[in-house]
Amino acid sequence: MTGKKRIAGIELGGTKIVCGIATGAGDVLQRTSIPTRGPEETLIDIRTWLEPRLTDTTGLGIASFGPVYVDPASPRYGHIGTTPKTAWRDFDLLRAIREWTELPLALDTDVNAAALAEIRWGAARGHDNVVYVTVGTGIGGGIVANSRAVHGLMHPEIGHMKPRRLPDDDFDGLCPFHGDCFEGLAAGPAIQARWGKQLNELPADHPAFAMEADYLGQLAVNLLLTASPTKLIFGGGVMSNTELLPMVRDAAARHLNNYLDLTDPSNGPEEPIVTPGLESNAGLLGAVALVIDAS
Amino acid sequence: MTGKKRIAGIELGGTKIVCGIATGAGDVLQRTSIPTRGPEETLIDIRTWLEPRLTDTTGLGIASFGPVYVDPASPRYGHIGTTPKTAWRDFDLLRAIREWTELPLALDTDVNAAALAEIRWGAARGHDNVVYVTVGTGIGGGIVANSRAVHGLMHPEIGHMKPRRLPDDDFDGLCPFHGDCFEGLAAGPAIQARWGKQLNELPADHPAFAMEADYLGQLAVNLLLTASPTKLIFGGGVMSNTELLPMVRDAAARHLNNYLDLTDPSNGPEEPIVTPGLESNAGLLGAVALVIDAS
Repeated sequence: MTGKKRIAGIELGGTKIVCGIATGAGDVLQRTSIPTRGPEETLIDIRTWLEPRLTDTTGLGIASFGPVYVDPASPRYGHIGTTPKTAWRDFDLLRAIREWTELPLALDTDVNAAALAEIRWGAARGHDNVVYVTVGTGIGGGIVANSRAVHGLMHPEIGHMKPRRLPDDDFDGLCPFHGDCFEGLAAGPAIQARWGKQLNELPADHPAFAMEADYLGQLAVNLLLTASPTKLIFGGGVMSNTELLPMVRDAAARHLNNYLDLTDPSNGPEEPIVTPGLESNAGLLGAVALVIDAS
Repeated sequence: MTGKKRIAGIELGGTKIVCGIATGAGDVLQRTSIPTRGPEETLIDIRTWLEPRLTDTTGLGIASFGPVYVDPASPRYGHIGTTPKTAWRDFDLLRAIREWTELPLALDTDVNAAALAEIRWGAARGHDNVVYVTVGTGIGGGIVANSRAVHGLMHPEIGHMKPRRLPDDDFDGLCPFHGDCFEGLAAGPAIQARWGKQLNELPADHPAFAMEADYLGQLAVNLLLTASPTKLIFGGGVMSNTELLPMVRDAAARHLNNYLDLTDPSNGPEEPIVTPGLESNAGLLGAVALVIDAS
């Protein structure tokens, strides 16, 4: 009777929070969106909306931006890590929620959770090895390997790898840690800083597209050659431009140079690089999936 | 009584093959080493040594160089893939072995197998998320996530990611697919082509060391930020130089720039970047571990 359960979820993003109630079958019954402010104010907003709606729910899942300590054995379990969002650094997220609910809580990164939700209800149904990348305010990624989210040392932080720079690109990059890592070069704020506009405000033959596609194609290659996903999902605000995904596929194939044949039928009949099936509900349903997986 | 079983193993490497018999407790009872030639001749050599020794063994594990098709559901299961070793390309390895034994066979990449052996008996005991990198004739890597080897789309081929080039390095690289990917820039043949010698023939203050360490440090970062291993093991001939590993650790820390604190006690008290515990037996014992894991 999993489908009849009501489960609460919080997707904690860098610019907005999505709270909601869904069934165990992945149907969203209620949801709201709250701007992300400092941790104390934001947690009050979350509580105000969510607490009266927790009656008859069986658990609360939290899909948080990273870095966040997700290993229950860590003394920092439930804390936010060294994020550029300095007000949130070291914030004890799980404790702040535990103050007003006794429900079972489940925590993972927003992107690990989204990967689990896409496997359960979205673009990666039936797949055991899946990567979910979000390209928005930052670049993050979640990895499911052998049907379970990967944690290990912290959790995947794929946006902070460094791409090969394009020869005509001398932008310094915006990452406070690494300058010109993937996040520093290709997240939404980097596109804005570089071109003064977002992709949706530019024509598809503008050089911004080819550059963005090349960097994301390199990121795809790094992921295909490490986590070996059979579905590599690119979501997030930047990917909402529908011109971009085919260009990312082409760039990935160009960088692989036939080393992996992405269209090899023995790899399965489907295109591995895709957009999310759950669209804007991936994070919220990811939080719900965490509760189901933990129970 | 796992420890009393006798299990056969083949480590199929680019330059040599190791065949052996071990106990289920990881004790090597007999082993031999055979130069790798073309597939037909090499398989005759393997059979000549191994077939008479298979009496009373419970299975035969095969740890092969990649790319190799390791998914039993693939029509190409057991075949070698698009390797630069052209004589081996598309060779049906498993079928060639099946011709002379009815034993249960288990197949994975040499590096996935080595990671499993290091978890069972070596430098990664008790760890669930482990990467084993070999730096030798090529650069390869195996990934164990959530205690199981990662396959997915093919299997990890980490040596073919591209590093950020060092500003004073204009070497073209030797990879026939990608030129200056990690393998093309930092495997043994690249060191030889670049400097005319191997690291063991050069003093530790020679620029070859700093360059090699920087590229392998970047590789370590890409792996730490994707597969998130709590143990990242660097083996293979190039790593036999004991000066190199500490320099790789320093380079990785420099590239991470404190984004992940590798010495954070909440990540565990141990250094994540290490050398193999099983040394030259890692591949052979990996093949044995495949049989144990499959039974």
